[in-house]
Amino acid sequence: MILETALDLLKHKDYNTLKMLISQENPADLALLLDELPKEDAVITYRLLPKELATEVFSHLEGDNREALITAFSDKELEEVVADLFIDDAVDLIEEMPASVVKRILKHTSPEDRKIINEILNYPKDSAGSIMTTEFVTLRRDMTVEQAFDRIRKTGVDKETIYTCYVTDDTKKLLGTVSVKDLLLSDYSTHIEDIMEDNPISVVTTDDKEDVAKQLTHYDFIAMPVTDTENRLVGIVTFDDAMDVIEDETEEDFAIMAAMSPSEDGYFKTSVFVHAKNRIFWLLFLMLSSTITGSIIAKYEEAFAALPILVAFIPMLMSAGGNCGSQSSTMVIRGLAVNEIRFKDFFKVVFKELRISVIVGVILSVINAVRILIMYRNSQECDSAVLALIVSLTLVLVVIIAQIMGCCLPMLAKKLKFDPAIMAAPLISTIADTCSVLIFFNIAMTILHIR
Amino acid sequence: MILETALDLLKHKDYNTLKMLISQENPADLALLLDELPKEDAVITYRLLPKELATEVFSHLEGDNREALITAFSDKELEEVVADLFIDDAVDLIEEMPASVVKRILKHTSPEDRKIINEILNYPKDSAGSIMTTEFVTLRRDMTVEQAFDRIRKTGVDKETIYTCYVTDDTKKLLGTVSVKDLLLSDYSTHIEDIMEDNPISVVTTDDKEDVAKQLTHYDFIAMPVTDTENRLVGIVTFDDAMDVIEDETEEDFAIMAAMSPSEDGYFKTSVFVHAKNRIFWLLFLMLSSTITGSIIAKYEEAFAALPILVAFIPMLMSAGGNCGSQSSTMVIRGLAVNEIRFKDFFKVVFKELRISVIVGVILSVINAVRILIMYRNSQECDSAVLALIVSLTLVLVVIIAQIMGCCLPMLAKKLKFDPAIMAAPLISTIADTCSVLIFFNIAMTILHIR
Repeated sequence: MILETALDLLKHKDYNTLKMLISQENPADLALLLDELPKEDAVITYRLLPKELATEVFSHLEGDNREALITAFSDKELEEVVADLFIDDAVDLIEEMPASVVKRILKHTSPEDRKIINEILNYPKDSAGSIMTTEFVTLRRDMTVEQAFDRIRKTGVDKETIYTCYVTDDTKKLLGTVSVKDLLLSDYSTHIEDIMEDNPISVVTTDDKEDVAKQLTHYDFIAMPVTDTENRLVGIVTFDDAMDVIEDETEEDFAIMAAMSPSEDGYFKTSVFVHAKNRIFWLLFLMLSSTITGSIIAKYEEAFAALPILVAFIPMLMSAGGNCGSQSSTMVIRGLAVNEIRFKDFFKVVFKELRISVIVGVILSVINAVRILIMYRNSQECDSAVLALIVSLTLVLVVIIAQIMGCCLPMLAKKLKFDPAIMAAPLISTIADTCSVLIFFNIAMTILHIR
Repeated sequence: MILETALDLLKHKDYNTLKMLISQENPADLALLLDELPKEDAVITYRLLPKELATEVFSHLEGDNREALITAFSDKELEEVVADLFIDDAVDLIEEMPASVVKRILKHTSPEDRKIINEILNYPKDSAGSIMTTEFVTLRRDMTVEQAFDRIRKTGVDKETIYTCYVTDDTKKLLGTVSVKDLLLSDYSTHIEDIMEDNPISVVTTDDKEDVAKQLTHYDFIAMPVTDTENRLVGIVTFDDAMDVIEDETEEDFAIMAAMSPSEDGYFKTSVFVHAKNRIFWLLFLMLSSTITGSIIAKYEEAFAALPILVAFIPMLMSAGGNCGSQSSTMVIRGLAVNEIRFKDFFKVVFKELRISVIVGVILSVINAVRILIMYRNSQECDSAVLALIVSLTLVLVVIIAQIMGCCLPMLAKKLKFDPAIMAAPLISTIADTCSVLIFFNIAMTILHIR
């Protein structure tokens, strides 16, 4: 709605009305608007933004729109935006821009900021250090609440969050945390050391960012302090960045579980060729694996030459195995992802899945047997009871094996430091297919030979 | 580690040391500890907790442990805990306890709280009203910053968050919001109306809780105000509760996408029978659907009687269709879940998937044709070129059809107000299977007859 109004105002060059309109909006919504406008209109609209909103809107924009804006910026404009950005946003920006733009950005960054940005860029990808911000409020343990408020007032403007303050000593070692709530609810003369949380929970710069995000959620923190290996406070990870990490990881899990390489950008931003590239590797791998199943079937030509109706059950057995396997692998992959299941639970999980698979397998087999007995009761080609026996026996075994594989393989992958999500439905199905066909024809040959 | 120490101390009845140990820990970690201890030990340990920690630990506990504790509580203990809980936590507690326990809880709740709890319980399940808390700080627009701080100090103790304060008029209408950061950075004499955010973003009690959580993340809010239909402020949804909603929804999507009914509890808390029940419905449905594919194969008996090697390609074609379909359906389901894809993008998505599928299909077919030409070059049974033609032609068509279905069906499901996630891999695969087999045998019959 606002998009259409904005387009209309831009068309009629009614910039005053547009300026009024956008000054009322939330920065996150304005970023969405700018992302949807044509590039030139986005630049015009951005320049109409009130100064105090502009940088916040900028930090919410998509990568290519930021690039377009930076290209349009005068040196002075660029300098202002870069100075206003929180350090972690500046790092993000630099990481996603092409080299020529990075060069221009760094030229307009203050030497101190440039130093900090370079330090953060040096932390390993996916580490806590790489997503932290270095802007936080520190207090001393011997300060009074009144002094603490003075300090927050003086230094708080540029800080991403002021609601948790960090108590450090002369060597920057983290001693404790104190929330603004506790400060507000205490007397002005109280000393910080009397109200601070001792034994503060913190992470180390090299910790995995996903673990940090999970810990922050576990403790319901607004920000998680990050220290170096000697417990010196070097940064904080704020809850909004932690939520982004969790969302990205979920996205990645979904992609991997559907046998795709995860995409950095959104669906529409990713080109057709990149989409195809992300999908083709697994498809090729799974196609070639499934030819193994085909070769196995070919080996049992004599079986289905003797009883061609057997072939009709292959799709059902393959799909039952695949579906059961994907159910248990999905449960286990999620359990591992949210830390509910650990490797030490291996046998507990296997025993649980075994019991579930027996129940499920028996129910499916019985219903299937009934169906075969009814449908093939007048068949000339075969004895319906024998057919029911062959198919149902196979079905029970296939369900049990598929479910056990579905729970074991993700846990083993995790143990071997692979992403458990690669052991999801597509791969499990392909393995289950081969097992199904082998079991099916062996049971069929045995039973039919006995006759 | 702390679990073993605690068990050891409990065994030796060294309650003083245990008390010291636990008073150092974070409430979220203590809840984990209590969840892992035997029930009687958990009750003993809970009673050793410092009073200011106890209720917070209680609100982090698993359902059945809370029930055990409440059963062990004296009336006085219960009254204290219930009075201390935030309203939204009290509502959660009541929702998950059995009727007899609920009765006892409500008996020990103050009449005012009971009234509020009943109101919240009356909001539809999955609505913003059902997850909000009614404890927040309100300010008036004509207050000064100093008066605001006085009010926060007086009323803030029991509020779940004080960092965003809500400006209301005499009729409780929401006029604006002001952050404690802005209060702290302003002069004491400033009026609230001069620093408050006008046009505050808010949701209505009946809005879907998932949408509310997504909006909160979009705006990076600490809390989202909830109003009734007349814009009167009745509650807030805090970021930690919003994160829980998002996690639950993701969990649910994963379950549905693997063809399971979502489970309310965790993997281990859910019994074997409930797990089996959650899985059997879809398995039965998919098993019966896949027999259709089987019947189709049976119909083409003459085709594979003439050229038995055809059967060997069925698994590969079925799995290629299933995998391609699940890739595109996963992309679209996620895109819909995070609001990146909307129904209005229908043709854009279909066109994109069409182009991707042509690229992917052609690559797979070419590689597959080469494989067949090499592997069957000396075959007595058939001409490898004809076989390669039949299989590769089928493969291109199957890939294209599966990907188009994979993107259309979730969007149509969404349009028809179903959860798009039901159109995930298992169902798509089953439909793609049928198509693959039909296309395969028709192409084979046509080409073989022509000869």
